[in-house]
Amino acid sequence: MNNQRVGYQGEPGAYSEIAAMRFAENNKPFEDFKHIFQAVVDGSLDYGAIPLENSLGGSIHQNYDYLMEFPVNVIAETYVNIEHCLMGLPGSQLEKATHVLSHPQALMQCKDFLDAHPNLKAEATYDTAGSAKLIAETKSLNQLAIASKRAAELYGLNIIKTDLADADWNITRIVCIAKKDVAIHPSVKSSERKTSLVFLMPNEQGSLFTALATMALRKIDLTKIESRPSRKKAFEYLFYVDIIGSPTERNVKNALAHLEEISPMVKVLGCYGKIE
Amino acid sequence: MNNQRVGYQGEPGAYSEIAAMRFAENNKPFEDFKHIFQAVVDGSLDYGAIPLENSLGGSIHQNYDYLMEFPVNVIAETYVNIEHCLMGLPGSQLEKATHVLSHPQALMQCKDFLDAHPNLKAEATYDTAGSAKLIAETKSLNQLAIASKRAAELYGLNIIKTDLADADWNITRIVCIAKKDVAIHPSVKSSERKTSLVFLMPNEQGSLFTALATMALRKIDLTKIESRPSRKKAFEYLFYVDIIGSPTERNVKNALAHLEEISPMVKVLGCYGKIE
Repeated sequence: MNNQRVGYQGEPGAYSEIAAMRFAENNKPFEDFKHIFQAVVDGSLDYGAIPLENSLGGSIHQNYDYLMEFPVNVIAETYVNIEHCLMGLPGSQLEKATHVLSHPQALMQCKDFLDAHPNLKAEATYDTAGSAKLIAETKSLNQLAIASKRAAELYGLNIIKTDLADADWNITRIVCIAKKDVAIHPSVKSSERKTSLVFLMPNEQGSLFTALATMALRKIDLTKIESRPSRKKAFEYLFYVDIIGSPTERNVKNALAHLEEISPMVKVLGCYGKIE
Repeated sequence: MNNQRVGYQGEPGAYSEIAAMRFAENNKPFEDFKHIFQAVVDGSLDYGAIPLENSLGGSIHQNYDYLMEFPVNVIAETYVNIEHCLMGLPGSQLEKATHVLSHPQALMQCKDFLDAHPNLKAEATYDTAGSAKLIAETKSLNQLAIASKRAAELYGLNIIKTDLADADWNITRIVCIAKKDVAIHPSVKSSERKTSLVFLMPNEQGSLFTALATMALRKIDLTKIESRPSRKKAFEYLFYVDIIGSPTERNVKNALAHLEEISPMVKVLGCYGKIE
Protein backbone atom coordinates (compact mmCIF):
# COMPACT_ATOMS: atom_id res chain seq x y z
CA MET A 1 0.00 0.00 0.00
CA ASN A 2 1.09 3.52 -0.63
CA ASN A 3 -0.14 7.04 -0.21
CA GLN A 4 -2.08 7.21 -3.47
CA ARG A 5 -5.43 9.03 -3.53
CA VAL A 6 -8.56 7.06 -4.45
CA GLY A 7 -12.11 8.35 -4.97
CA TYR A 8 -15.35 6.44 -4.27
CA GLN A 9 -19.03 7.31 -4.50
CA GLY A 10 -20.98 7.79 -1.28
CA GLU A 11 -20.36 8.80 2.32
CA PRO A 12 -17.55 7.31 4.44
CA GLY A 13 -18.78 3.83 5.43
CA ALA A 14 -20.30 3.20 1.97
CA TYR A 15 -19.70 -0.26 0.54
CA SER A 16 -17.57 1.35 -2.19
CA GLU A 17 -15.26 2.74 0.49
CA ILE A 18 -14.43 -0.84 1.50
CA ALA A 19 -13.13 -1.39 -2.06
CA ALA A 20 -11.37 2.00 -2.10
CA MET A 21 -9.49 1.08 1.09
CA ARG A 22 -8.08 -1.96 -0.71
CA PHE A 23 -6.88 0.24 -3.58
CA ALA A 24 -5.16 3.03 -1.59
CA GLU A 25 -4.79 4.53 1.89
CA ASN A 26 -5.90 8.01 1.10
CA ASN A 27 -9.56 7.84 0.12
CA LYS A 28 -12.03 10.58 -0.67
CA PRO A 29 -15.84 10.47 -0.97
CA PHE A 30 -17.54 11.78 -4.12
CA GLU A 31 -21.22 12.45 -4.80
CA ASP A 32 -21.27 10.78 -8.20
CA PHE A 33 -19.21 8.60 -10.53
CA LYS A 34 -18.65 11.12 -13.31
CA HIS A 35 -16.65 13.41 -11.05
CA ILE A 36 -14.44 10.48 -10.02
CA PHE A 37 -13.60 9.80 -13.68
CA GLN A 38 -12.91 13.52 -14.23
CA ALA A 39 -10.64 13.68 -11.15
CA VAL A 40 -8.64 10.64 -12.30
CA VAL A 41 -8.18 12.17 -15.75
CA ASP A 42 -7.15 15.62 -14.44
CA GLY A 43 -4.74 14.04 -11.95
CA SER A 44 -6.37 15.16 -8.71
CA LEU A 45 -6.96 11.46 -7.96
CA ASP A 46 -4.62 8.55 -8.68
CA TYR A 47 -7.39 5.96 -8.64
CA GLY A 48 -11.15 5.61 -8.71
CA ALA A 49 -13.25 2.78 -7.21
CA ILE A 50 -16.01 2.10 -9.73
CA PRO A 51 -18.69 -0.59 -9.24
CA LEU A 52 -19.38 -2.44 -12.51
CA GLU A 53 -21.87 -5.11 -11.46
CA ASN A 54 -23.83 -6.49 -8.54
CA SER A 55 -25.11 -10.02 -8.12
CA LEU A 56 -28.70 -8.81 -7.61
CA GLY A 57 -28.77 -5.55 -9.55
CA GLY A 58 -26.75 -6.54 -12.65
CA SER A 59 -24.23 -4.51 -14.65
CA ILE A 60 -24.11 -0.75 -14.18
CA HIS A 61 -24.22 0.38 -17.81
CA GLN A 62 -23.64 4.01 -16.97
CA ASN A 63 -20.20 3.21 -15.55
CA TYR A 64 -19.37 1.20 -18.69
CA ASP A 65 -20.33 4.35 -20.64
CA TYR A 66 -17.85 6.39 -18.60
CA LEU A 67 -15.14 3.74 -19.18
CA MET A 68 -15.69 4.26 -22.91
CA GLU A 69 -15.84 8.05 -22.65
CA PHE A 70 -12.85 8.83 -20.40
CA PRO A 71 -9.19 7.97 -21.16
CA VAL A 72 -8.69 5.58 -18.21
CA ASN A 73 -7.48 2.02 -17.69
CA VAL A 74 -8.97 -0.66 -15.46
CA ILE A 75 -5.96 -1.72 -13.36
CA ALA A 76 -7.49 -4.04 -10.70
CA GLU A 77 -10.76 -5.58 -9.55
CA THR A 78 -12.12 -6.54 -6.13
CA TYR A 79 -15.30 -8.10 -4.76
CA VAL A 80 -17.19 -6.61 -1.82
CA ASN A 81 -19.85 -8.52 0.11
CA ILE A 82 -22.85 -6.30 0.72
CA GLU A 83 -23.73 -7.26 4.30
CA HIS A 84 -26.56 -5.07 5.52
CA CYS A 85 -26.65 -4.52 9.29
CA LEU A 86 -29.25 -2.83 11.46
CA MET A 87 -27.74 -0.21 13.75
CA GLY A 88 -28.66 2.54 16.17
CA LEU A 89 -27.24 4.77 18.89
CA PRO A 90 -26.13 3.03 22.10
CA GLY A 91 -29.36 2.57 24.06
CA SER A 92 -31.62 2.29 21.03
CA GLN A 93 -33.79 -0.85 20.83
CA LEU A 94 -35.39 -2.72 17.97
CA GLU A 95 -38.72 -2.92 19.85
CA LYS A 96 -38.89 0.77 20.75
CA ALA A 97 -37.60 2.32 17.51
CA THR A 98 -40.12 3.88 15.13
CA HIS A 99 -38.12 4.50 11.93
CA VAL A 100 -35.48 2.74 9.87
CA LEU A 101 -33.42 4.80 7.43
CA SER A 102 -31.51 3.64 4.35
CA HIS A 103 -31.12 3.85 0.57
CA PRO A 104 -34.35 2.57 -1.08
CA GLN A 105 -32.46 -0.31 -2.71
CA ALA A 106 -31.14 -1.50 0.68
CA LEU A 107 -34.61 -1.09 2.21
CA MET A 108 -36.04 -3.22 -0.60
CA GLN A 109 -33.33 -5.85 -0.10
CA CYS A 110 -34.41 -6.13 3.55
CA LYS A 111 -38.13 -6.38 2.78
CA ASP A 112 -38.73 -9.60 4.76
CA PHE A 113 -37.26 -8.02 7.88
CA LEU A 114 -39.33 -4.84 7.42
CA ASP A 115 -42.52 -6.85 6.83
CA ALA A 116 -41.86 -8.72 10.09
CA HIS A 117 -41.40 -5.43 12.01
CA PRO A 118 -44.42 -3.24 11.25
CA ASN A 119 -43.43 -0.91 14.12
CA LEU A 120 -40.56 0.34 11.93
CA LYS A 121 -41.46 2.87 9.24
CA ALA A 122 -39.00 2.69 6.34
CA GLU A 123 -37.58 6.07 5.37
CA ALA A 124 -35.52 6.60 2.24
CA THR A 125 -32.17 8.39 2.33
CA TYR A 126 -29.49 9.23 -0.20
CA ASP A 127 -27.20 6.40 0.84
CA THR A 128 -26.71 3.64 3.39
CA ALA A 129 -23.75 5.12 5.27
CA GLY A 130 -25.36 8.56 5.17
CA SER A 131 -28.25 7.15 7.22
CA ALA A 132 -25.87 6.04 9.96
CA LYS A 133 -24.22 9.47 9.88
CA LEU A 134 -27.62 11.18 10.14
CA ILE A 135 -28.57 9.22 13.25
CA ALA A 136 -25.23 10.05 14.86
CA GLU A 137 -25.95 13.73 14.17
CA THR A 138 -29.61 13.87 15.22
CA LYS A 139 -28.93 11.65 18.27
CA SER A 140 -32.37 10.09 17.86
CA LEU A 141 -32.98 6.82 19.72
CA ASN A 142 -36.14 6.24 17.67
CA GLN A 143 -34.26 5.95 14.40
CA LEU A 144 -32.27 2.96 13.18
CA ALA A 145 -30.21 2.64 10.00
CA ILE A 146 -29.42 -0.14 7.54
CA ALA A 147 -25.77 0.14 6.48
CA SER A 148 -22.39 -1.58 6.56
CA LYS A 149 -20.57 -2.76 9.69
CA ARG A 150 -17.93 -0.15 8.94
CA ALA A 151 -20.54 2.63 8.94
CA ALA A 152 -21.55 1.57 12.49
CA GLU A 153 -17.90 1.75 13.60
CA LEU A 154 -17.30 5.12 11.93
CA TYR A 155 -20.36 6.84 13.39
CA GLY A 156 -20.31 5.20 16.83
CA LEU A 157 -23.48 3.15 16.43
CA ASN A 158 -24.26 -0.27 17.91
CA ILE A 159 -25.06 -3.14 15.58
CA ILE A 160 -28.47 -4.53 16.55
CA LYS A 161 -28.73 -7.25 13.88
CA THR A 162 -26.51 -8.58 11.12
CA ASP A 163 -27.55 -10.52 7.96
CA LEU A 164 -30.57 -8.33 7.46
CA ALA A 165 -31.08 -8.92 3.73
CA ASP A 166 -33.56 -11.42 2.23
CA ALA A 167 -30.97 -12.75 -0.24
CA ASP A 168 -27.71 -14.06 1.13
CA TRP A 169 -25.76 -13.51 -2.07
CA ASN A 170 -25.19 -9.82 -2.57
CA ILE A 171 -21.75 -9.12 -3.99
CA THR A 172 -20.51 -6.06 -5.88
CA ARG A 173 -17.60 -6.18 -8.30
CA ILE A 174 -15.66 -2.93 -8.09
CA VAL A 175 -12.80 -2.04 -10.41
CA CYS A 176 -9.92 0.36 -9.86
CA ILE A 177 -9.41 2.90 -12.63
CA ALA A 178 -6.28 4.99 -13.29
CA LYS A 179 -4.83 7.16 -16.02
CA LYS A 180 -4.02 5.47 -19.34
CA ASP A 181 -0.28 5.26 -18.59
CA VAL A 182 -0.83 3.10 -15.48
CA ALA A 183 -0.92 -0.55 -16.57
CA ILE A 184 -1.63 -2.48 -13.38
CA HIS A 185 -2.23 -1.79 -9.69
CA PRO A 186 0.91 -2.40 -7.56
CA SER A 187 -1.11 -4.42 -5.00
CA VAL A 188 -2.11 -7.09 -7.53
CA LYS A 189 -0.18 -10.16 -6.33
CA SER A 190 -1.47 -12.97 -8.52
CA SER A 191 -0.06 -13.40 -12.02
CA GLU A 192 -3.53 -14.31 -13.38
CA ARG A 193 -4.76 -11.62 -15.71
CA LYS A 194 -8.24 -10.73 -16.88
CA THR A 195 -8.84 -8.49 -19.89
CA SER A 196 -12.08 -6.52 -20.31
CA LEU A 197 -13.21 -5.44 -23.74
CA VAL A 198 -16.11 -3.73 -25.42
CA PHE A 199 -16.87 -4.29 -29.08
CA LEU A 200 -19.60 -3.32 -31.50
CA MET A 201 -21.33 -5.72 -33.87
CA PRO A 202 -24.07 -5.12 -36.42
CA ASN A 203 -27.16 -7.25 -35.70
CA GLU A 204 -26.56 -9.62 -38.60
CA GLN A 205 -27.26 -13.30 -38.65
CA GLY A 206 -24.59 -15.05 -36.60
CA SER A 207 -22.42 -11.95 -36.02
CA LEU A 208 -21.99 -12.62 -32.29
CA PHE A 209 -21.18 -16.27 -32.99
CA THR A 210 -18.44 -15.19 -35.42
CA ALA A 211 -17.09 -12.69 -32.87
CA LEU A 212 -16.92 -15.35 -30.17
CA ALA A 213 -15.23 -17.74 -32.61
CA THR A 214 -12.19 -15.43 -32.55
CA MET A 215 -11.81 -16.38 -28.87
CA ALA A 216 -13.10 -19.96 -28.85
CA LEU A 217 -10.90 -21.08 -31.75
CA ARG A 218 -7.89 -19.86 -29.73
CA LYS A 219 -9.06 -21.61 -26.53
CA ILE A 220 -9.56 -18.34 -24.64
CA ASP A 221 -11.87 -18.56 -21.62
CA LEU A 222 -14.69 -16.05 -21.17
CA THR A 223 -15.78 -15.03 -17.65
CA LYS A 224 -18.43 -12.53 -18.73
CA ILE A 225 -20.46 -11.70 -21.79
CA GLU A 226 -23.25 -9.19 -22.04
CA SER A 227 -25.01 -7.58 -24.98
CA ARG A 228 -26.39 -4.07 -24.91
CA PRO A 229 -28.32 -2.38 -27.71
CA SER A 230 -26.22 0.49 -29.07
CA ARG A 231 -27.69 3.91 -28.36
CA LYS A 232 -26.01 5.38 -31.41
CA LYS A 233 -27.50 3.18 -34.10
CA ALA A 234 -30.50 0.87 -34.26
CA PHE A 235 -29.76 -2.83 -34.84
CA GLU A 236 -26.23 -2.52 -33.55
CA TYR A 237 -25.11 -4.12 -30.32
CA LEU A 238 -22.31 -3.42 -27.90
CA PHE A 239 -20.79 -6.48 -26.24
CA TYR A 240 -19.01 -6.45 -22.90
CA VAL A 241 -16.64 -9.39 -22.68
CA ASP A 242 -14.13 -10.39 -19.98
CA ILE A 243 -11.52 -13.00 -20.87
CA ILE A 244 -8.82 -14.82 -18.94
CA GLY A 245 -5.45 -13.74 -20.29
CA SER A 246 -3.52 -10.68 -21.39
CA PRO A 247 -2.92 -9.04 -24.79
CA THR A 248 0.78 -9.77 -24.19
CA GLU A 249 -0.05 -13.47 -24.77
CA ARG A 250 0.04 -14.51 -28.41
CA ASN A 251 -3.41 -16.13 -28.59
CA VAL A 252 -5.13 -13.11 -26.97
CA LYS A 253 -3.24 -10.69 -29.23
CA ASN A 254 -4.26 -12.66 -32.31
CA ALA A 255 -7.88 -12.98 -31.15
CA LEU A 256 -8.10 -9.20 -30.69
CA ALA A 257 -6.62 -8.60 -34.16
CA HIS A 258 -9.12 -11.10 -35.60
CA LEU A 259 -11.98 -9.37 -33.75
CA GLU A 260 -10.90 -6.04 -35.25
CA GLU A 261 -11.23 -7.56 -38.71
CA ILE A 262 -14.95 -8.17 -38.16
CA SER A 263 -16.02 -5.47 -35.66
CA PRO A 264 -16.18 -1.74 -36.48
CA MET A 265 -15.06 -0.93 -32.89
CA VAL A 266 -13.00 -2.89 -30.35
CA LYS A 267 -11.82 -1.22 -27.14
CA VAL A 268 -9.71 -2.84 -24.41
CA LEU A 269 -10.79 -1.36 -21.05
CA GLY A 270 -7.79 -2.82 -19.21
CA CYS A 271 -5.77 -5.90 -18.34
CA TYR A 272 -5.68 -6.44 -14.60
CA GLY A 273 -5.66 -8.77 -11.62
CA LYS A 274 -7.68 -9.28 -8.48
CA ILE A 275 -7.06 -7.56 -5.12
CA GLU A 276 -8.53 -9.44 -2.15
CA MET B 1 -58.16 -4.10 -23.48
CA ASN B 2 -60.16 -5.86 -20.85
CA ASN B 3 -60.84 -5.72 -17.17
CA GLN B 4 -57.88 -7.83 -16.11
CA ARG B 5 -55.98 -6.88 -12.95
CA VAL B 6 -52.29 -5.98 -13.22
CA GLY B 7 -49.80 -5.25 -10.43
CA TYR B 8 -46.81 -2.90 -10.62
CA GLN B 9 -44.17 -1.75 -8.13
CA GLY B 10 -44.33 1.81 -6.83
CA GLU B 11 -46.89 4.52 -6.24
CA PRO B 12 -49.46 5.56 -8.87
CA GLY B 13 -47.52 7.68 -11.38
CA ALA B 14 -44.46 5.37 -11.21
CA TYR B 15 -42.84 4.58 -14.56
CA SER B 16 -43.91 0.94 -14.11
CA GLU B 17 -47.54 2.07 -13.97
CA ILE B 18 -47.19 3.38 -17.53
CA ALA B 19 -46.33 -0.18 -18.59
CA ALA B 20 -49.08 -1.67 -16.42
CA MET B 21 -51.67 0.58 -18.12
CA ARG B 22 -50.67 -0.95 -21.46
CA PHE B 23 -51.20 -4.46 -20.06
CA ALA B 24 -54.62 -3.99 -18.40
CA GLU B 25 -57.13 -1.38 -17.26
CA ASN B 26 -57.34 -2.37 -13.66
CA ASN B 27 -53.95 -1.70 -12.10
CA LYS B 28 -52.78 -1.97 -8.53
CA PRO B 29 -49.63 -0.62 -6.84
CA PHE B 30 -47.36 -2.99 -4.86
CA GLU B 31 -44.45 -2.22 -2.56
CA ASP B 32 -42.14 -4.86 -4.01
CA PHE B 33 -41.77 -7.31 -6.88
CA LYS B 34 -41.96 -10.54 -4.88
CA HIS B 35 -45.53 -9.83 -3.80
CA ILE B 36 -46.52 -9.22 -7.44
CA PHE B 37 -45.21 -12.67 -8.41
CA GLN B 38 -47.04 -14.21 -5.44
CA ALA B 39 -50.31 -12.47 -6.36
CA VAL B 40 -50.07 -13.67 -9.98
CA VAL B 41 -49.49 -17.24 -8.82
CA ASP B 42 -52.33 -17.24 -6.25
CA GLY B 43 -54.72 -15.69 -8.78
CA SER B 44 -55.38 -12.37 -7.04
CA LEU B 45 -53.73 -10.68 -10.06
CA ASP B 46 -54.04 -11.68 -13.72
CA TYR B 47 -50.82 -9.95 -14.72
CA GLY B 48 -47.68 -8.39 -13.28
CA ALA B 49 -45.57 -5.59 -14.83
CA ILE B 50 -41.96 -6.55 -14.13
CA PRO B 51 -38.96 -4.43 -15.27
CA LEU B 52 -36.15 -6.66 -16.57
CA GLU B 53 -33.58 -4.14 -17.78
CA ASN B 54 -32.83 -0.45 -18.11
CA SER B 55 -30.57 1.21 -20.65
CA LEU B 56 -28.48 2.87 -17.93
CA GLY B 57 -28.90 0.50 -14.99
CA GLY B 58 -28.63 -2.87 -16.77
CA SER B 59 -30.50 -6.12 -16.14
CA ILE B 60 -32.37 -6.55 -12.87
CA HIS B 61 -31.08 -9.96 -11.80
CA GLN B 62 -33.42 -10.22 -8.86
CA ASN B 63 -36.44 -10.21 -11.17
CA TYR B 64 -34.79 -12.91 -13.30
CA ASP B 65 -34.45 -14.92 -10.08
CA TYR B 66 -38.18 -14.55 -9.44
CA LEU B 67 -38.94 -15.62 -13.03
CA MET B 68 -37.00 -18.82 -12.29
CA GLU B 69 -38.57 -19.33 -8.86
CA PHE B 70 -42.27 -18.74 -9.57
CA PRO B 71 -44.44 -20.73 -12.04
CA VAL B 72 -45.21 -17.82 -14.39
CA ASN B 73 -44.92 -17.10 -18.12
CA VAL B 74 -43.68 -13.94 -19.80
CA ILE B 75 -46.59 -13.10 -22.16
CA ALA B 76 -45.65 -9.62 -23.51
CA GLU B 77 -42.98 -6.94 -23.37
CA THR B 78 -43.10 -3.14 -23.60
CA TYR B 79 -40.59 -0.28 -23.52
CA VAL B 80 -41.10 2.80 -21.34
CA ASN B 81 -39.12 6.01 -21.82
CA ILE B 82 -37.97 7.32 -18.46
CA GLU B 83 -38.54 11.06 -18.92
CA HIS B 84 -37.78 12.85 -15.67
CA CYS B 85 -39.70 16.11 -15.17
CA LEU B 86 -39.35 18.75 -12.46
CA MET B 87 -42.69 19.60 -10.85
CA GLY B 88 -44.23 21.54 -8.00
CA LEU B 89 -47.52 22.89 -6.70
CA PRO B 90 -49.16 25.61 -8.76
CA GLY B 91 -47.36 28.81 -7.68
CA SER B 92 -44.06 27.11 -6.87
CA GLN B 93 -40.99 28.50 -8.64
CA LEU B 94 -37.63 27.03 -9.55
CA GLU B 95 -35.80 30.11 -8.19
CA LYS B 96 -37.61 30.19 -4.85
CA ALA B 97 -37.76 26.48 -4.06
CA THR B 98 -35.32 25.06 -1.49
CA HIS B 99 -35.65 21.27 -1.86
CA VAL B 100 -36.03 18.73 -4.62
CA LEU B 101 -37.36 15.27 -3.74
CA SER B 102 -36.95 12.00 -5.64
CA HIS B 103 -35.59 8.46 -5.62
CA PRO B 104 -31.76 8.60 -5.24
CA GLN B 105 -31.30 7.00 -8.68
CA ALA B 106 -33.41 9.70 -10.35
CA LEU B 107 -31.57 12.40 -8.39
CA MET B 108 -28.27 10.97 -9.60
CA GLN B 109 -29.54 10.84 -13.19
CA CYS B 110 -30.28 14.59 -12.97
CA LYS B 111 -26.90 15.49 -11.44
CA ASP B 112 -26.02 18.16 -14.04
CA PHE B 113 -29.28 19.99 -13.33
CA LEU B 114 -28.76 19.77 -9.56
CA ASP B 115 -25.16 20.99 -9.87
CA ALA B 116 -26.41 24.00 -11.84
CA HIS B 117 -29.03 24.82 -9.15
CA PRO B 118 -27.22 24.91 -5.80
CA ASN B 119 -30.28 26.56 -4.21
CA LEU B 120 -32.02 23.17 -4.41
CA LYS B 121 -31.12 20.63 -1.74
CA ALA B 122 -31.60 17.08 -3.03
CA GLU B 123 -33.67 14.91 -0.68
CA ALA B 124 -34.04 11.16 -1.16
CA THR B 125 -37.46 9.50 -1.12
CA TYR B 126 -38.73 5.97 -1.60
CA ASP B 127 -39.84 6.54 -5.18
CA THR B 128 -40.27 9.18 -7.87
CA ALA B 129 -44.07 9.31 -7.94
CA GLY B 130 -44.20 9.15 -4.14
CA SER B 131 -42.28 12.45 -4.07
CA ALA B 132 -44.97 14.12 -6.15
CA LYS B 133 -47.64 12.67 -3.89
CA LEU B 134 -45.81 13.92 -0.79
CA ILE B 135 -45.70 17.50 -2.11
CA ALA B 136 -49.41 17.36 -2.93
CA GLU B 137 -50.04 16.27 0.67
CA THR B 138 -47.72 18.67 2.48
CA LYS B 139 -48.75 21.57 0.19
CA SER B 140 -45.22 22.96 0.41
CA LEU B 141 -44.27 25.56 -2.22
CA ASN B 142 -40.60 25.17 -1.26
CA GLN B 143 -40.42 21.55 -2.37
CA LEU B 144 -40.18 20.30 -5.94
CA ALA B 145 -40.20 16.70 -7.16
CA ILE B 146 -38.52 14.78 -9.98
CA ALA B 147 -40.99 12.27 -11.42
CA SER B 148 -42.98 11.29 -14.52
CA LYS B 149 -45.37 13.57 -16.42
CA ARG B 150 -48.16 11.26 -15.33
CA ALA B 151 -47.26 11.77 -11.65
CA ALA B 152 -47.69 15.55 -12.13
CA GLU B 153 -51.12 14.98 -13.67
CA LEU B 154 -52.22 12.53 -10.97
CA TYR B 155 -51.21 14.73 -8.03
CA GLY B 156 -52.17 18.11 -9.52
CA LEU B 157 -48.65 19.49 -9.85
CA ASN B 158 -47.31 21.85 -12.54
CA ILE B 159 -44.43 20.72 -14.70
CA ILE B 160 -41.65 23.29 -14.34
CA LYS B 161 -39.08 21.62 -16.62
CA THR B 162 -38.98 18.53 -18.83
CA ASP B 163 -35.90 16.57 -20.06
CA LEU B 164 -34.20 16.91 -16.70
CA ALA B 165 -31.83 13.95 -16.98
CA ASP B 166 -28.17 14.17 -18.03
CA ALA B 167 -28.49 11.21 -20.40
CA ASP B 168 -31.15 11.34 -23.09
CA TRP B 169 -31.40 7.58 -23.48
CA ASN B 170 -33.14 6.11 -20.47
CA ILE B 171 -35.48 3.29 -21.43
CA THR B 172 -36.83 0.45 -19.29
CA ARG B 173 -37.95 -2.87 -20.73
CA ILE B 174 -40.90 -4.16 -18.75
CA VAL B 175 -42.44 -7.60 -19.28
CA CYS B 176 -45.94 -8.81 -18.50
CA ILE B 177 -46.11 -12.01 -16.47
CA ALA B 178 -49.12 -14.31 -16.07
CA LYS B 179 -49.89 -17.80 -14.81
CA LYS B 180 -48.30 -20.71 -16.66
CA ASP B 181 -51.49 -21.55 -18.58
CA VAL B 182 -51.60 -18.11 -20.26
CA ALA B 183 -49.53 -18.28 -23.45
CA ILE B 184 -49.65 -14.76 -24.86
CA HIS B 185 -51.18 -11.38 -23.99
CA PRO B 186 -54.36 -10.66 -26.00
CA SER B 187 -53.14 -7.13 -26.86
CA VAL B 188 -50.07 -8.40 -28.75
CA LYS B 189 -50.88 -7.49 -32.37
CA SER B 190 -47.69 -8.31 -34.25
CA SER B 191 -47.00 -11.89 -35.26
CA GLU B 192 -43.28 -11.48 -34.45
CA ARG B 193 -42.33 -13.60 -31.47
CA LYS B 194 -39.43 -13.39 -29.06
CA THR B 195 -38.49 -16.28 -26.77
CA SER B 196 -36.57 -15.72 -23.53
CA LEU B 197 -34.54 -18.53 -22.04
CA VAL B 198 -32.20 -19.18 -19.16
CA PHE B 199 -29.68 -21.99 -19.27
CA LEU B 200 -26.81 -23.22 -17.14
CA MET B 201 -23.37 -24.10 -18.45
CA PRO B 202 -20.29 -25.35 -16.64
CA ASN B 203 -17.32 -22.98 -17.10
CA GLU B 204 -15.47 -25.30 -19.45
CA GLN B 205 -13.37 -24.28 -22.40
CA GLY B 206 -15.70 -23.21 -25.18
CA SER B 207 -18.94 -24.23 -23.45
CA LEU B 208 -20.73 -20.97 -24.28
CA PHE B 209 -19.54 -21.15 -27.87
CA THR B 210 -21.00 -24.67 -28.17
CA ALA B 211 -24.28 -23.51 -26.60
CA LEU B 212 -24.56 -20.62 -29.06
CA ALA B 213 -23.76 -22.97 -31.93
CA THR B 214 -27.13 -24.66 -31.29
CA MET B 215 -28.74 -21.34 -32.34
CA ALA B 216 -26.26 -20.04 -34.93
CA LEU B 217 -26.19 -23.30 -36.92
CA ARG B 218 -29.97 -23.01 -37.25
CA LYS B 219 -29.83 -19.32 -38.28
CA ILE B 220 -31.65 -18.13 -35.15
CA ASP B 221 -31.16 -14.45 -34.31
CA LEU B 222 -30.19 -13.41 -30.76
CA THR B 223 -31.39 -10.06 -29.38
CA LYS B 224 -29.84 -10.44 -25.92
CA ILE B 225 -27.17 -12.49 -24.22
CA GLU B 226 -25.92 -12.10 -20.70
CA SER B 227 -23.83 -14.29 -18.44
CA ARG B 228 -24.24 -14.41 -14.70
CA PRO B 229 -22.13 -16.46 -12.29
CA SER B 230 -24.33 -19.13 -10.70
CA ARG B 231 -24.91 -18.61 -7.00
CA LYS B 232 -25.43 -22.32 -6.45
CA LYS B 233 -22.10 -23.65 -7.69
CA ALA B 234 -18.72 -22.05 -8.34
CA PHE B 235 -17.51 -22.10 -11.95
CA GLU B 236 -21.02 -22.47 -13.34
CA TYR B 237 -22.71 -19.72 -15.29
CA LEU B 238 -26.33 -18.88 -15.99
CA PHE B 239 -27.01 -17.39 -19.40
CA TYR B 240 -29.97 -15.17 -20.24
CA VAL B 241 -30.71 -15.34 -23.95
CA ASP B 242 -33.52 -13.77 -26.02
CA ILE B 243 -34.07 -15.10 -29.53
CA ILE B 244 -36.34 -14.11 -32.40
CA GLY B 245 -38.81 -16.93 -33.01
CA SER B 246 -41.06 -19.35 -31.19
CA PRO B 247 -40.62 -22.95 -29.99
CA THR B 248 -43.50 -23.80 -32.35
CA GLU B 249 -41.06 -23.20 -35.23
CA ARG B 250 -39.02 -26.24 -36.18
CA ASN B 251 -35.56 -24.64 -36.02
CA VAL B 252 -36.21 -23.12 -32.55
CA LYS B 253 -37.65 -26.40 -31.27
CA ASN B 254 -34.60 -28.31 -32.53
CA ALA B 255 -32.17 -25.71 -31.13
CA LEU B 256 -33.78 -26.01 -27.68
CA ALA B 257 -33.57 -29.82 -27.83
CA HIS B 258 -29.92 -29.53 -28.86
CA LEU B 259 -29.25 -27.07 -26.02
CA GLU B 260 -30.78 -29.56 -23.57
CA GLU B 261 -28.27 -32.18 -24.75
CA ILE B 262 -25.37 -30.02 -23.55
CA SER B 263 -26.79 -27.94 -20.68
CA PRO B 264 -27.84 -29.37 -17.30
CA MET B 265 -30.72 -26.82 -17.12
CA VAL B 266 -32.70 -25.01 -19.82
CA LYS B 267 -35.80 -23.00 -18.92
CA VAL B 268 -38.05 -21.13 -21.34
CA LEU B 269 -39.38 -18.01 -19.55
CA GLY B 270 -41.97 -17.30 -22.25
CA CYS B 271 -42.68 -16.72 -25.92
CA TYR B 272 -44.26 -13.33 -26.46
CA GLY B 273 -44.71 -10.20 -28.57
CA LYS B 274 -44.35 -6.47 -28.08
CA ILE B 275 -47.12 -4.11 -26.88
CA GLU B 276 -46.55 -0.47 -27.87
